Order: sequence, then structure tokens, then C-alpha cells
Amino acid sequence: MTTVSADLVRTLGEPSQEDLDRLDAWWRANNYLTIGQIYLKANPLLREPLTADHIKPRLLGHWGTSPGLSFIYAHVSRLIQHTGQEAIYLAGPGHGGPALVAAGYLEGTYTEHFPGITLDEGGLLKLFRQFSSPGGIPSHVSVTTPGSIHEGGELGYVLVHAFGAVMDNPDLLAIAVVGDGEAETGPLEGSWKGISFINAQRDGAVLPILHLNDGKISGPTVLGRKDPEDVRSLLRGHGYQIIEVSGGDLPGMHQRFAAALAEAYQAIQDKKDGRDDVRWPVIILRSPKGWTGPHEVDGVLVEGTWRAHQVPLSGVRENPEHLKMLEQWLRSYRPEELFDATGAPVALVRDAAPEGNLRMSASPHANGGLLTRDLDMPDFRTYAVDVKVPGAERAESTRRLGEMMRDIYTSSPDRFRLFCPDETNSNRLGAVFEVSDRAFMERTVPGDVKLGPDGRVMEVLSEHNCHGWLEGYNLTGRHGLFATYEAFAMVSASQTVQHGKWLQEAAHLPWRAKVPSLNILLTSTAWRNDHNGFSHQGPGLLQVVLNQRGNVARVYLPPDANTLLSVADHCFRSRSYVNLIVIDKQPQLQYLSMDEAIAHCARGAGIWDWAGTDDGVTDPDIVLACAGDVVTMETVAAAQILKERLPGFKTRVVNVVNLMSLPRPKDHPHGMSEVQFTELFTDTVDVVFAFHGYPGAIHQVVHGRPDADRFRVRGFIEQGTTTTPFDMTVRNKTSRYHLVMDAINNAKRLPRGAADLKAWCEAQLAKHELYVVENLEDMPEVRDWSLAPRG
Amino acid sequence: MTTVSADLVRTLGEPSQEDLDRLDAWWRANNYLTIGQIYLKANPLLREPLTADHIKPRLLGHWGTSPGLSFIYAHVSRLIQHTGQEAIYLAGPGHGGPALVAAGYLEGTYTEHFPGITLDEGGLLKLFRQFSSPGGIPSHVSVTTPGSIHEGGELGYVLVHAFGAVMDNPDLLAIAVVGDGEAETGPLEGSWKGISFINAQRDGAVLPILHLNDGKISGPTVLGRKDPEDVRSLLRGHGYQIIEVSGGDLPGMHQRFAAALAEAYQAIQDKKDGRDDVRWPVIILRSPKGWTGPHEVDGVLVEGTWRAHQVPLSGVRENPEHLKMLEQWLRSYRPEELFDATGAPVALVRDAAPEGNLRMSASPHANGGLLTRDLDMPDFRTYAVDVKVPGAERAESTRRLGEMMRDIYTSSPDRFRLFCPDETNSNRLGAVFEVSDRAFMERTVPGDVKLGPDGRVMEVLSEHNCHGWLEGYNLTGRHGLFATYEAFAMVSASQTVQHGKWLQEAAHLPWRAKVPSLNILLTSTAWRNDHNGFSHQGPGLLQVVLNQRGNVARVYLPPDANTLLSVADHCFRSRSYVNLIVIDKQPQLQYLSMDEAIAHCARGAGIWDWAGTDDGVTDPDIVLACAGDVVTMETVAAAQILKERLPGFKTRVVNVVNLMSLPRPKDHPHGMSEVQFTELFTDTVDVVFAFHGYPGAIHQVVHGRPDADRFRVRGFIEQGTTTTPFDMTVRNKTSRYHLVMDAINNAKRLPRGAADLKAWCEAQLAKHELYVVENLEDMPEVRDWSLAPRG
Ligand SMILES: Cc1ncc(C[n+]2csc(CCOP(=O)(O)OP(=O)(O)O)c2C)c(N)n1
Ligand SMILES: Cc1ncc(C[n+]2csc(CCOP(=O)(O)OP(=O)(O)O)c2C)c(N)n1
Ligand SMILES: [Mg+2]
Ligand SMILES: [Mg+2]
Repeated sequence: MTTVSADLVRTLGEPSQEDLDRLDAWWRANNYLTIGQIYLKANPLLREPLTADHIKPRLLGHWGTSPGLSFIYAHVSRLIQHTGQEAIYLAGPGHGGPALVAAGYLEGTYTEHFPGITLDEGGLLKLFRQFSSPGGIPSHVSVTTPGSIHEGGELGYVLVHAFGAVMDNPDLLAIAVVGDGEAETGPLEGSWKGISFINAQRDGAVLPILHLNDGKISGPTVLGRKDPEDVRSLLRGHGYQIIEVSGGDLPGMHQRFAAALAEAYQAIQDKKDGRDDVRWPVIILRSPKGWTGPHEVDGVLVEGTWRAHQVPLSGVRENPEHLKMLEQWLRSYRPEELFDATGAPVALVRDAAPEGNLRMSASPHANGGLLTRDLDMPDFRTYAVDVKVPGAERAESTRRLGEMMRDIYTSSPDRFRLFCPDETNSNRLGAVFEVSDRAFMERTVPGDVKLGPDGRVMEVLSEHNCHGWLEGYNLTGRHGLFATYEAFAMVSASQTVQHGKWLQEAAHLPWRAKVPSLNILLTSTAWRNDHNGFSHQGPGLLQVVLNQRGNVARVYLPPDANTLLSVADHCFRSRSYVNLIVIDKQPQLQYLSMDEAIAHCARGAGIWDWAGTDDGVTDPDIVLACAGDVVTMETVAAAQILKERLPGFKTRVVNVVNLMSLPRPKDHPHGMSEVQFTELFTDTVDVVFAFHGYPGAIHQVVHGRPDADRFRVRGFIEQGTTTTPFDMTVRNKTSRYHLVMDAINNAKRLPRGAADLKAWCEAQLAKHELYVVENLEDMPEVRDWSLAPRG
Repeated sequence: MTTVSADLVRTLGEPSQEDLDRLDAWWRANNYLTIGQIYLKANPLLREPLTADHIKPRLLGHWGTSPGLSFIYAHVSRLIQHTGQEAIYLAGPGHGGPALVAAGYLEGTYTEHFPGITLDEGGLLKLFRQFSSPGGIPSHVSVTTPGSIHEGGELGYVLVHAFGAVMDNPDLLAIAVVGDGEAETGPLEGSWKGISFINAQRDGAVLPILHLNDGKISGPTVLGRKDPEDVRSLLRGHGYQIIEVSGGDLPGMHQRFAAALAEAYQAIQDKKDGRDDVRWPVIILRSPKGWTGPHEVDGVLVEGTWRAHQVPLSGVRENPEHLKMLEQWLRSYRPEELFDATGAPVALVRDAAPEGNLRMSASPHANGGLLTRDLDMPDFRTYAVDVKVPGAERAESTRRLGEMMRDIYTSSPDRFRLFCPDETNSNRLGAVFEVSDRAFMERTVPGDVKLGPDGRVMEVLSEHNCHGWLEGYNLTGRHGLFATYEAFAMVSASQTVQHGKWLQEAAHLPWRAKVPSLNILLTSTAWRNDHNGFSHQGPGLLQVVLNQRGNVARVYLPPDANTLLSVADHCFRSRSYVNLIVIDKQPQLQYLSMDEAIAHCARGAGIWDWAGTDDGVTDPDIVLACAGDVVTMETVAAAQILKERLPGFKTRVVNVVNLMSLPRPKDHPHGMSEVQFTELFTDTVDVVFAFHGYPGAIHQVVHGRPDADRFRVRGFIEQGTTTTPFDMTVRNKTSRYHLVMDAINNAKRLPRGAADLKAWCEAQLAKHELYVVENLEDMPEVRDWSLAPRG
């Protein structure tokens, strides 16, 4: 953070007349451009009287929030000009897209990125016409908006993104405007507490501005109508110091807001200086919704109410009265003072913007790929489990990943964090605590463990915070991992979806540099939440990511530690993906040596010779395929049973690590060729596929492959409770015994003894059922099963 | 709410010695049973010295939260005894399952529902052994726990469930314990504001008890460590009056908590009496995590810290020291005073429980099916759109549903509510406002519209609140609908998942009466969020519900108003399902008369003769199938193009309303027979399927049907932005022109002219692309297209 003198801050708080003129001109220009985007397809500078022909056929966009957003923007720009402060701007009510587009345009950034949108009348017209139109730009503060790291379409995440952006970013100030409607969402209410995790010396600062314009889509808001003392009390309770500005009068509001911003900035400076008695500031801004817009329409009050939310004058094409009001409204900003003869913003307006990278629309922090530095990656082979024989010994695979992350914390101490909802230890990733505490700015007491203001492991019991912080951290160019219980990944599923959409769209914009991928580790999975029960058993997120576009979505199901390490190394180096890694935390069998693991992961899927009885020359009798750790163990065990008890029956075991290797290349860029596919799965032999997630997912990804109907998929079929590990596979018909019976039922050719083996499997299942009820644990032959050479 | 005298409340606040003895005995008994469930498989009453043989092989369960939960429970029971108040108990930290199971057992309810679990030593042993074990009960306060409407597995929803439960339930008091870890989640933080929507006269009361035991799984909590004045300030800001109790001393804590509860109850009484100066109370309870458990283990402090979270003594089977500590711990509750010679709780303990339905574990409110009364349903045919010719006129289908709901509000004024995140009008359901305002207890001002304390339409900008309130309302036996933008239904997807799991499990318990279904209307869909852009375009929830078990999941895609009405009527009458209804709100073509709609919905899917050219005798050349309103229009339009431009080509149009009619009967109870399936889809002709959601969903549901590979699915492939309605279908390759080309490419037989028609389609697409960029709206031939007889 720039250090500035108290004098300077005082100047900031007392704008001169010149300052006011500039501020106001810029704001008027922005409002004018906002309305232009919503309404005009011609006559952009009102050089002729406005007619219905100048009006777009479909009136789209949101006026209500826009003047408030640009008012704040103008004032922050002034602060930047005076202080040289690096800042980015996050608009919670992202539907105020046109205001932020207008800001980028006035700052010149827009033209730099989109050279067709020039700073003249022609450019203006294009700017207006492209808004919300086919082949144009979306209506939200989206990925196409220069300076944005926050779309704001799905409301609720502005503070989590802002807090993530400033972590390990000591020089950055993130201005985060919170809509009062938005403030009603759960994720937003859960995110005020970000300051309990921000270290003023090491991190940057977030300045939340709660914008109480009293309206949302069709009514007032809770905070807008609460006793102001209650609102203050609420934010004070979260730990903030309150600064309040109210009104709609001008220039009074400019003066008061400038003073408020200066006060807030001083408080941030004081925090940075280590003053413990100072609290992080929040500004409560009460200004009318649709400020400076039509006050009354058809005899009904609009300004200051929810009625200003979208397009306050909707009948302009049909209703001459409305058209006249629109013209008056537009002319009230005196465009002739704001744009010169060519249509370019005049100096007074241009001078209101900071220069170069200090323009918020041009901040490299908001195009984080520009600032991304690779991680100093330790060699992942160092953490390998020493596997001499496949399937002989057990290890906790995620522990190895924890060790790897510990060393990334050390080697890249300024650009890597782990985010986890109170489960780092539970998920066996605790090695990171050898080198970093948990971040915690609240009181600590003797006896606390690995906890304190210097910590950089992010633990908060909120999937929304963890996910959103990581997104903010990623989009500003830094790396991390969100580790969570698989089932509760659904809590933040919509964030995964929205971030995926962001990345999908960013890929189309050459000026958006690629950012570190969003890495999500799903552990404590459906199959091994036997101690927690049904609510903790749900592989839903995998299915969600599967439906994202192929340029973004990646799903990995490493079956053991070495494959996990190889996958993780790949993910930490990758850019602009959503990488989903699914593996359980419990001790599990290890199959592949490190070299084998690397080769296996490179292919994405492969035949495990040692597991099957395939001769590699002719087609096997059945293919036993698997993806996911627990089901892989069941598959290997089933193959072993078949090997031992049905000699002459030829099985091939195929393990899939990279789920996206299964679709056709035309459906996903990772999809293997048809030749490779048939080399693994043949083109006629039935495939018994044991899958970690819902069976439908496999039908979905193999669609279009040769005779896809031959895939018989077992997977999680929503059978769960608190029980033993093996019982989970039995309940979901994915146990080794079920797989053996499936293999027999679907094989084209059956040696003698198959019927007996099926009967034996049934008997084993019956035995299991009695055993677990009696002994409250699995049969030893299952519990301790391995491929270890006997004797 | 029972009205009680101030005197009585005073008595409540000053427990006699006898009261204290009873309270404490019950609490000790509960703690004893809690620990027994976690540890013991034999020797349940410690009649012999404890040995390793008495200990379960796997130690599962959560001790830490349990003593706090049962402490509160004991005190509320006493309140009920004194006042006759009807109350239910919701444990936010639902992992305290054993404490609530123990409560039901001590109250006798457990034995009533599970006759095998008797009130004697044998029953005790079974109670202990079944906990967290195969074939037994889950570890959370789940559906098997008498008196529970809240699992608490996925943390964050205790207050939304509690608030939903008391709406229109004036006599009910819902005690909601909030864990301090849980209090960090977004959904929980977003739910304190429930009181801004609760009318003290008409609704019941929620008493939140924030349990600051300072620990979660592996660290302290934000609220546990904040300055207590900040915590008070926070809750005061939400609108509460604060009552605080702290400590671990006994009997002091009993006395102080009894006084706090009395004070809270008095405040609730005052609110009920209409005293505007009184605020809803909240109790902040600070008591040690793992209270009364092992204080230190192996030299490390456990009691009062996160270390008490699960099983504080983990080594009891191997470590004699631990075993001894466990025995001491168990004996510290003096079981010999609590259970008689047969093992039954002694009178002192039994007397601490209220009688009959007043026992919280026996409350009919927590088994809401018992109280469910059917809605007084108006005849849905009344709201029909008059359809004379299919596909000729447009109407806003959801408006009709709004009118139907308006009349349900009137006919069933005490048991129906609509829940919607600030979008009731936007979703065209505003007819409900003719008979009810929005509920709002905050300040209203002149000019406010349909808003006030008497309102019963629930609008809050929080999908989490809307969803959770409806769940609470449903589980206590009342009916409703959650209406939301399709894309943002993913915000509360995990709630849909968890509620589905609840219903899935409830179906196995004969004593759980069926409850009204959770009805979710997804509108403002992916295909018609052309004005909002990509973040608003996501059919994800459909996919989520598809993976729920068949005994619960229902997905309907009515193509027009009359089918919507028929589907809605069915859903409002149904029980214990998750009904997902997907239909857009924009004006859309109407196809079926009411009689046709009813027949179509009854079948779930059917051939639309009037749309195709099928002769009904031989197989058509192609089947054009569709599910979802927009894609149905495209399909009908495609069939029309083929009819007009490719004479002799035989198409069959199949529309699917009930998506669950497609799977095989063995995969879903609604699945049609194979005969019906082939009557619609043939068993060899290719099917071009235009689907509302992600294409993979159709591959998933038709898996196993005859030659499922012949289904060519078009659907939402994550192509979106702000654009025109038709452009959305073009971008996702689901437009009428794409469908025509698909039909030609996949038909077995092609009349002359097919190549020309394909070329024409390509040309139309090219024309469209130019047209929309130039005119910012769709080509008139598409925009105004209908099947209306020309001339
Ligand atoms: C999660 C979510 N639910 C619903 C919506 C639909 N929506 C768009 S804008 C809006 C109102 C926003 O009000 P507020 O935050 O006060 O913004 P402002 O008044 O500044 O426009 C709503 C409900 C949404 N965008 N996101
Ligand atoms: C949404 C969600 N995330 C994570 C978990 C894992 N989890 C189970 S218990 C727990 C800690 C709960 O702490 P608190 O609410 O304070 O309960 P208590 O201290 O009373 O046990 C966590 C994080 C969960 N159950 N739900
Ligand atoms: Mg607002
Ligand atoms: Mg706690």
C-alpha cells in the first residue's frame, strides 16, 4: 500500500472546486454513456432531436445501480490520482455492467483492448450498439469488461473475490461495492468476516462499500429499511469501523463522499502502520436507486425505488411522452460539455482518470495472468510412495500431497495458499502446518495450535469463502488449492459453475492472459464417509464439472498416491482450467510406482496387465474398467477373484485417471482417438465399468464410442448411511462380488465353473451382511485384502 | 403460543432444588447414553468393570457438541413441563446425533417407534450397538431420530429450517441451536434475518441459541474468539435482544440457563402480545466443548477445545490408561442412580420429560405428515389457455400458474406459501399479490407495494433462505413452491440434494408420515435469459435432481401453459417428492387444449400427430423428440419445415413432459414399459432429441433402451451470452435449422430435395447471423413464427 501523509489525506477529504468539476463531469459522462448503451442505436451524441428511430428495438440493461457505481468509481479514481494507490474495483451488483464499460471507455482502456471502439462518435455508436446485443458484449461486469475480476451476475460473491484478491498482495486496495439486495444472500452475509483473516502488514486492503439504495428488483431491502443504528451495529459486530454517507444532494454528496473516502483511506493507512486500535473501515452509502434518472414516470415515483432497477422508461418507442423524457434525461448531463466535436471526451473528463496501469480498468491485478509467476515446484517424485508390488500396501495418499504443498508453501512463499473449510488435518493435508499456521486475526490463547496472524493456510468453516477467496487469488495471478469433503463441494457448486463460465469466456479474449487454474480436491469421498453417513455421501460436483465446456473442465480420479502426485503437479502448472481431483484420504492400496504413475497419467487411461488375465493378443472375455480409488480396489479384487476361481476366463483391467480421456476428441480436447479407445476397450467386448460417481456420467462420456451400449456401469446409486467401508460398495452394488457377477453375466464366453462362482459371490455377500451386523466391522478377508504375495 | 403468567415465568427462572435434581439427573443420563453409543458394545450399565472387550471395534461419533445439546434440551423440557408449550428442537451441529437419540430414548419415543429398543438393559445394548453401525442408525440427527426435522450433516441450515417450521404455526416454539463453527457458513449467516419475515401474531417463534463452545473440528471459531461485545453487536444488528450465559460451573449453569430461558420466553410472550418495543430474543451460550468429558488426555487439554470434537479418548482398546479414564468418565455420571435394576431410567430421570406429544421427540410438528391437510385445490382447468389450434398463439404460461396459486392462497389460507428470491413479479407469478402482500416486518413507507407484516408471500434475495424455509414448512406439514431463476437454483443445489436424501431415507420408516413435496419451479431459463447473459444460463439443477433416487426425484418439462397447470396440480397434491418443474416465463407458443394436456401429462410423453407427417402405420424416417418449452418450439418448427419443404419425408414428433418416463422401469418407477417406449421411439429409427438441459442427461436416461446409441441429442452446450432468443438456440446448435439438418443427416431414407434443404438451412443460419447483428433482434420469420393457419 502506498504510504501517504496525513496532509494529503486531508486534501483528499476536501475536494477543491476544480476537483468537484472534474469529478462531476466524469460522472455525468459515465451516466450519459450508461443510458446510451441501454437505449440508443443511433444519434449517440444527441446532435439531432431524439426520435423513435434512434432507439434500440429491445431495451436491455440495468440503470438503477449504475449511477451509484460510477459515482464511487469517480471518487476512487480521484483518490488514485492523488495517492498513486493501486486499486481494483469490484461491482457486487454486476448488472451495472454499462457503468463499468463506460468507465473503461472513458479511461481509454476499452479502445486499447477493442480497437474498433474508438474514442469518437463512430466508436460511441459501436459502444452503444454492442451492448447486450448479438455478437456484442454481455450486460454484466463480465470477463469482457476491462478491469473486472467479478461478473456479479450471480449475486453474493463480491467480498469473497475482493478478499482473495488482496491476500499476499500488500500494495493492492480492492474497492468492493455491495448491493443491499446482494447483502441478503447467504454467501455475502458470510463474507464480511474476511477481515478476520486479513493481515494488514502482509495483505492488501478491502474497502467494502455497502450501497443502500433501498431497492432490489421489486421491493425494498432488509438493510435499507432497518434502523440505521442496527445496520451500524451489524457491521461493527463483524469488526468494522463505520463511515456513513447519505443523500442525493449535489455537490454535497461529492463533498461528503470524498471526506468519507479519505477517512477510510486514513484508517487503512493506520492499519498498515500496525495500529491495533484501528479497525478496518466500511462505508455505508445511502443514495437513491436510479439517482439522477427520471424521478417520476406516469405519475409513479421511480428514482430512489426498486422501479429504477432496469429500464425506467420502457415505452420510449411507442410513447412520445417517454421519448421526450428520455431526451430530457440524456440532455440533463449536458453531453455537449462532455464530448468534443469528434465525439471524444473533453479534457475535463479525461483528466478525471488516473494514468496507465493506475486506471482501475487497466489494472494488471484485474488481468492477473499478466502478473502470474510459475510456482517454484518441488520435484513431485520426492514424495512418492515406494511401490514394489502393485496392490500390496496401504498408504494415505493425500498425506503425500500435503507434504508436496508444504514444500510449495516454502518454495513459493508469496503466491500459494491452501483453502479448506476446517478440514486440513481431517483431510490428511496437515503437513502444511509444519511451515505455516492457519491465518487468524482474532484473539489467540495459549494452547492454540498452528494459528495466528502470520498464518497463510486458510481455514474457515465456509465452502463459499474458501472457494471465492481462491477464485480472487487465482484471478489476480496466484496459485492454490481448495480442498473439501466431496459431498459439501455441492455447497459451492454454483461458484464452480460461475468460475467455469468466466474461464470459458476469457479464453475468447486475447487480451485476457491465462491465470492459474482453479484446483479443487474432493476428498473424504462418498465411498469412505462410512463414519458420517448419507448426508456426507454425494459425488455431485463431478457431474457438475462434467457439463462445463471442454476448454475448461478437467476431472482426475487418481487411484493412489503416486498418480495423485503426478496429477497435482500437472494441475499446479496448468492455466485457466477447473481441475477437479477426486481421491479419498483414508489408507488405501497403492498400485503404481512413480514411473508407472507418470506414464499412466500421461495416457489418462491404461491397461493394468498385472491385474487381469488378458493375453494382449486376442480380445478378452470381459473388460473390467474403473475410475476412482475405492472402485479401483474393488475392480482389482474382482479381477483377482476371477483369476483364482475361474481359470481360462480372460479379463482385462483398464484404469481411467483422466475422465476426460473417454469422450470423443470432438466432444473434449482430452478425448482419446478412436484407435486408442478400442485398444483399451475393444469395440465389441462388454465393459463392466466401476465408477466413483453416478453411473450416468459414464454413459454420458462414452456416448458415440463404438457400441457404447455395451458399457455396464456400476457406481454411486445414492445408497448410503453410517456403515463399514466395504458395506458402502455392497449397498451400491459395486463390490468385488457384484463386479465378478457382472463380468460373468456379460461375458460373451464363459468357462465351466462360472455358475458356481456366481453362487459363491452370492454367498460371500450373504456372509458379509451377517458379519458386519454382528461384528460392526468388515470381514477380515475383505478388510485386510491385498494383492500381496502370500506366504 | 401458550399464554402464561409473569409469575409462572418467574418460577421458571428460579428452579427449585427438586427441579435442579431432575434436570441434572436427566442430563447425566443423556450424557451417559451418548458416550455409551460411541464406545460400548457390551456391559451397557457398567455392572462389571470395563474391559477392552466391551469396546466397539470402530469408535465413531461426536462427543464435543453433545453435552451442550442435551443441556439445552433438558432445560427446554422443563419449560414445556411448566408451560405446556409446544416445541421442537433443531440441532444445528447435527453430528450430536447420539445426544438426540438418547433424548428420544429417555422420553420413551424411541421405543414407541423402534419396539426392539426397549427401556431396559437389553434395549440399552441394542441402542448402543446400532449407533453408526451397519443396519443400524446414522450418526447424525437424521430422519431416523424421532423429533428431528433437521439432519445437521451439512452445516448451515438450522435457522432456515426453524423459521420455515414456525411460519403459519402460531403455537409452535422452535429451539434452534447454532454451532459456532456452523455460524461461519454463508447460509447460516444469511439466516439470522429470518425475524425480519416472522409475524409474531400469526407465526410461531424461533429461539436461536448460539452455542459458543469455541471449537469446531480443528481450531477455534471466529465468534468464539471475537470480543463478546462484537458478538452482541452483530446479533443486535440483526434485530435481536441478547441474553447471555457463560461458564461450566454446576449447578450455577443450570440456574443461570434456567433464568436465561425464562427471560427469552417472556420476551417471546411479549412479542406475541403485540409489544412493539420488544425484540425477538437470542441466547448466547458459552459452555465448554466436551463439557463434563475428559479434561486432559495424555497431558493435553481436551475439554473446552476443538480436541473434544469427536472421540476424545481414542485409544481405549489398546491403551489401559485410556480405558480407565473412559470408565471413570462414564461412572462420573453415577449410572447406578439413573437406571434401575432392569436398566430402565428411574423415575427422577423419567419425570424430567414432558408427557405425550409435548415431548420434543414426539412432537407431531416434527413428523409433519401427521398434521398435513390437503390443499383446497381450485380446479386447475379454470386457468386454462384456450387453445384452438396448436402452436398458433403465445401466452405467458407461468402467469396462469400465478393465478392458480393466488386462489390456493385464498382457499388454503393457513397452509400454502410461495417462496421466491425477489423475482415473483419477474417470474410472472405476481397474481398472488392480488390476495397477499410480501411478508416484511421492517419499516414500510408510503409508496411501498404489496409489502407488510400481514403478507405471506416470501421474498428475500436468498435462494438459501427460500429453499430452507420451504423445507421447514414442508416438513412440518404445509405446502408451497420455491420459484427461482433456473441458473441460480444451483446456489441452493446442495439443499436440494440434502432434502432429497432426507426424503429418500424417510421412505424407509413407516412411522414417518409422508409430507408435502418440495416443489421447485425453475423459470427464467437458460434459453430465455438472452437479456442477462451467460451467468444466468445454466440448466444445472435438472442434472442434479436426475441423480437422486427414483423414489424421490421427479422432473417435469411442460411445454406450455395447460401442461404446466396439469403438472402443478399433480405436484401440489403429491407427497414426499422433489418435484422439479422447468418452464420459461416469456410469452411462448401454446400447443395443447386442456383435455389434451391432461392426457399428455398422464402419459408423460406422447406423439404429437399434428406436428409430424407420420402415418402411424409404418416407422417414420426420423423421430423428432423434445423436452422443454423452447426446444419444443424449435422441434415443431423443424417438423413444419420438413413437412413443407421435403414432402414424402416422414417425421414423428414426440414430446416428453415427464423426463422420468424415459428410463427403464427398473431404473425409475415412472419409467414407461419397453412396449410403450418403442411405440413412441420405435426400436431402430434414429431419434433427434432436442433437450432443454445438457445433452448427456438424455444419454443417461435412455441408457438400456433398445439401441440407445441412435439417440442424437441436442441441448444446452454452455454457449451463451446476452443475445436474442433465437440466437441462443443457434449458438447451442438446437435451432429448427440445426434440427432439420440433423434429421436429414440421420434418417435412414431420404427423399430427393434433402441436400437442397440442408443448403437452405445453412443459408438461413447465415442470414440469421447477419440479421441479428444488424437489427439487434431476430428475423421476423423466426420471431413471429407460428403454426397459425395462414391466409
Ligand atoms: C443469486 C442471485 N439471485 C437472484 C438474482 C436476480 N437479481 C438480479 S439483480 C437483483 C437485485 C439486486 O439488488 P441490489 O443488490 O440491491 O442491487 P442494486 O439495487 O444496486 O441494483 C436480483 C434479485 C441474481 N442476480 N443472483
Ligand atoms: C457445510 C459443511 N462443511 C463442513 C462440514 C464438516 N464438519 C463437521 S462438524 C464441523 C465443525 C462444527 O463446529 P460447530 O458448528 O462449532 O459444532 P460443535 O462445536 O458444536 O461440534 C465441520 C467443519 C460439515 N459438516 N458441513
Ligand atoms: Mg439495491
Ligand atoms: Mg463449536
